[in-house]
Amino acid sequence: MLEIFLPGTGGMKPLPNRFLTGMWAEHNGSGLLIDCGEGMQVALAKISRSLAKLDILLITHFHADHISGLPGLLLSTGNFGKTIPLKIYCPVGGTEIIKKLCCICPELPFEVKVKEISGRGEIMWEDISVGYMPIRHRVPGLCYSLTECRKPVFSPEKAKSLGIPVNLWKELHGGKSVNLDGREITTEMVTEGERQPLKVTYITDSVYFDELADFAYKSNLLICEGMYGSEEYREKMQEKQHMIFSDSARVASLSESRELWLTHYSPAMTDPKEFEGQIKEMFANTIISRDGISKVIK
Amino acid sequence: MLEIFLPGTGGMKPLPNRFLTGMWAEHNGSGLLIDCGEGMQVALAKISRSLAKLDILLITHFHADHISGLPGLLLSTGNFGKTIPLKIYCPVGGTEIIKKLCCICPELPFEVKVKEISGRGEIMWEDISVGYMPIRHRVPGLCYSLTECRKPVFSPEKAKSLGIPVNLWKELHGGKSVNLDGREITTEMVTEGERQPLKVTYITDSVYFDELADFAYKSNLLICEGMYGSEEYREKMQEKQHMIFSDSARVASLSESRELWLTHYSPAMTDPKEFEGQIKEMFANTIISRDGISKVIK
Repeated sequence: MLEIFLPGTGGMKPLPNRFLTGMWAEHNGSGLLIDCGEGMQVALAKISRSLAKLDILLITHFHADHISGLPGLLLSTGNFGKTIPLKIYCPVGGTEIIKKLCCICPELPFEVKVKEISGRGEIMWEDISVGYMPIRHRVPGLCYSLTECRKPVFSPEKAKSLGIPVNLWKELHGGKSVNLDGREITTEMVTEGERQPLKVTYITDSVYFDELADFAYKSNLLICEGMYGSEEYREKMQEKQHMIFSDSARVASLSESRELWLTHYSPAMTDPKEFEGQIKEMFANTIISRDGISKVIK
Repeated sequence: MLEIFLPGTGGMKPLPNRFLTGMWAEHNGSGLLIDCGEGMQVALAKISRSLAKLDILLITHFHADHISGLPGLLLSTGNFGKTIPLKIYCPVGGTEIIKKLCCICPELPFEVKVKEISGRGEIMWEDISVGYMPIRHRVPGLCYSLTECRKPVFSPEKAKSLGIPVNLWKELHGGKSVNLDGREITTEMVTEGERQPLKVTYITDSVYFDELADFAYKSNLLICEGMYGSEEYREKMQEKQHMIFSDSARVASLSESRELWLTHYSPAMTDPKEFEGQIKEMFANTIISRDGISKVIK
């Protein structure tokens, strides 16, 4: 199970009614944050997410609106009593930038472990696989996906028919075989086959390109930037290396994702809802997300 | 005339309902900002202050809650079309810190001119004298005062009785003597004597010490930190080198200031108004200020 929150949905600069773009995920009591623009700690407080849970921070790229809130976030995380290390994964060049930004928070009660990543790869957050792939933007950057491989459904009927005592069910469901009166009982014998993994993909800031759909393939939830709803910005956004809503819908559609949340709106677009009708014609299950939107993926 | 605004009144970290402490002043269409914690650009937008006017930034000290909003503020100021240089005055060591923080806003359309200042001195903002003096905190820092020396009141009666044509009044009032039919007419001859200067003093973050009252002497408005209202925090605040409300009232009273605005409340103090009664017994003209408070000083 993954709990997903968007503390902010704005691009470029924070507004009184729209914080900067980022994503907060919770799994088994651990917190993962993607990006940390100015005001992120307030945005998280506003949706009652506790920084005490923060274990891992993923940075998409080093434009200010995605990183400027880092020193404040780290200080407040320390004030929440964190002592175990915080892992930060970021594009190449990030170690030096983070070191510079942290000149105003030199004494933290926990270690900050920065690891630069590039290319296409995978890291682990608890039992969640975190995939990453380069985006195409004006500076090096990455998009991310969280994939939870779920245990198959346990079948009490099968277990009972094999005469397996209840105290062994959990172990068996967890993947371990057990020996019962000389018989080896395997997980496959007491479960109902494979379940699709749960997948959440997060893409910002990038121009559209086909590999994004491949990366987001069969996401339960695709969170994707859309700077503008109107087609009139296509050329400008191509130049700035951002997407418009129709690009995001294309990624959602080609990736066969179940649901699309738009985010990272331009400050100039005061009401993204205005484009809801036309974007839903392209990808029906689109949400014009707003700050604070959340969902349990299970 | 000076217009004074407090975009935020919180210390340590920004809260959903309280931005970080700072002061915005406007005079003759020019803007001056003191401090720039995380979210300052939003706080200014919320009170409809335009970054296009920002000409001078004064930094009290380099704790994160007073400077972490700088990169975002500079970027947004650039987006507002600023091209003329921004002057930043700050305590010693600031050049290097500002340079580091600005690694995420490397391309601004205006020059940032940083000048480190120390000791007691004076700089000019338009025709306003900006005084500064060291505070006593855990890192080097400064408090500031703005003083506008006002022109004396013009007396049309005196001008008329001396037979001075109306087209010369402005020049005379502005301080220039004029020659009229061989007579030298001076400003003193057509005005009603001196007027008290207008003075606004801004003090945060500092422990109490007597020179603060000397520095704030006869302020029309004294804006002074007060982390807590309750006396039970005296010892802790002494250690952290902050003031409690009664310290601030003492500065206001000893400096013979007309009005005191409290600011820089601890995030733990959810309702500073709770202490209004007791602080007004110490200094009657105290305002427990909130984000967005403003006043025209004239």
